[in-house]
Amino acid sequence: MIIVFTGNGKGKTTAAIGQAIRALGQGRRVLMIQFIKGNWETGEDKFFKKFKVQSSRFKVVKAGRGFVKIFGDKLPFSEHKKAAENALKLTRTAIKLKKWDLIILDEINVAIDLKLIKAAEVLKILKNLPEEKTVILTGRNSPQSFIKIADLVTEMKEIKHPFKKGKLAQKGIEF
Amino acid sequence: MIIVFTGNGKGKTTAAIGQAIRALGQGRRVLMIQFIKGNWETGEDKFFKKFKVQSSRFKVVKAGRGFVKIFGDKLPFSEHKKAAENALKLTRTAIKLKKWDLIILDEINVAIDLKLIKAAEVLKILKNLPEEKTVILTGRNSPQSFIKIADLVTEMKEIKHPFKKGKLAQKGIEF
Repeated sequence: MIIVFTGNGKGKTTAAIGQAIRALGQGRRVLMIQFIKGNWETGEDKFFKKFKVQSSRFKVVKAGRGFVKIFGDKLPFSEHKKAAENALKLTRTAIKLKKWDLIILDEINVAIDLKLIKAAEVLKILKNLPEEKTVILTGRNSPQSFIKIADLVTEMKEIKHPFKKGKLAQKGIEF
Repeated sequence: MIIVFTGNGKGKTTAAIGQAIRALGQGRRVLMIQFIKGNWETGEDKFFKKFKVQSSRFKVVKAGRGFVKIFGDKLPFSEHKKAAENALKLTRTAIKLKKWDLIILDEINVAIDLKLIKAAEVLKILKNLPEEKTVILTGRNSPQSFIKIADLVTEMKEIKHPFKKGKLAQKGIEF
């Protein structure tokens, strides 16, 4: 099963985290590969650490190098590209392994939108997805080709957002 | 801050769970009041139990009596109503208490849509929401009055759903 959470609204990554929690509760093994987020501790990371959730049954891989070309990013584009390509390599392996039941490719749509990796490469990997496994792809601006092959697609559509009123990202809400 | 997750697509409750995880990680205290879900163990419940997440800092209250008028529900409507009214009473208290930083009113929009409780009563409670607290209201068909007073609104819009193709709800995905 292929699930896509896209759109410009809040709730894509948090919905994927909620799915991970639900799947873990039902005894599934979950791998989350983060294509953009770098080595920066979010609320969910602190939670996973505090409650010792990461184990042989649950792993979060921060494969990205952080924001790309925004918020003071000074890393060469080639470095971001290399990181996303590595994340993709990891995805290819993870899909083949028996080990993982749910694989979350967090912000992979953004990585494609930023031209760090190509949608066609991801499609090639997803073609080999065993029936019993689930993959969740998140991030705004999902390629149409993902929507076409997905079983379930939700567009998280922004109706209202406090950033628009000039409010800053809030701890415990945005990260 | 008032957040609304509405729309007909998948991801509203899971996004709220993701927010709870994030907030807990950042040291916030979270109360989740479920207006519809009854005494039925979901994946997230099993997860919270397994990792001993429920504590004085996190509580899930299953205040509902289950599906209303669908999926073989035989409970008198008055019983569903009583349950939702009790959930509302609990909400009123929780908002006043210093104890909770994030209060999730799961499927409260559905409870209103089903006429178990009135939007006006909820609005009256939300009027007294202290600045530092966050409330998340979930469920399809959110009343416009909630959207009007909310700071952040995401419409989870269904683009594709396997139920439409006749697939059944899947363990670890839908519950």
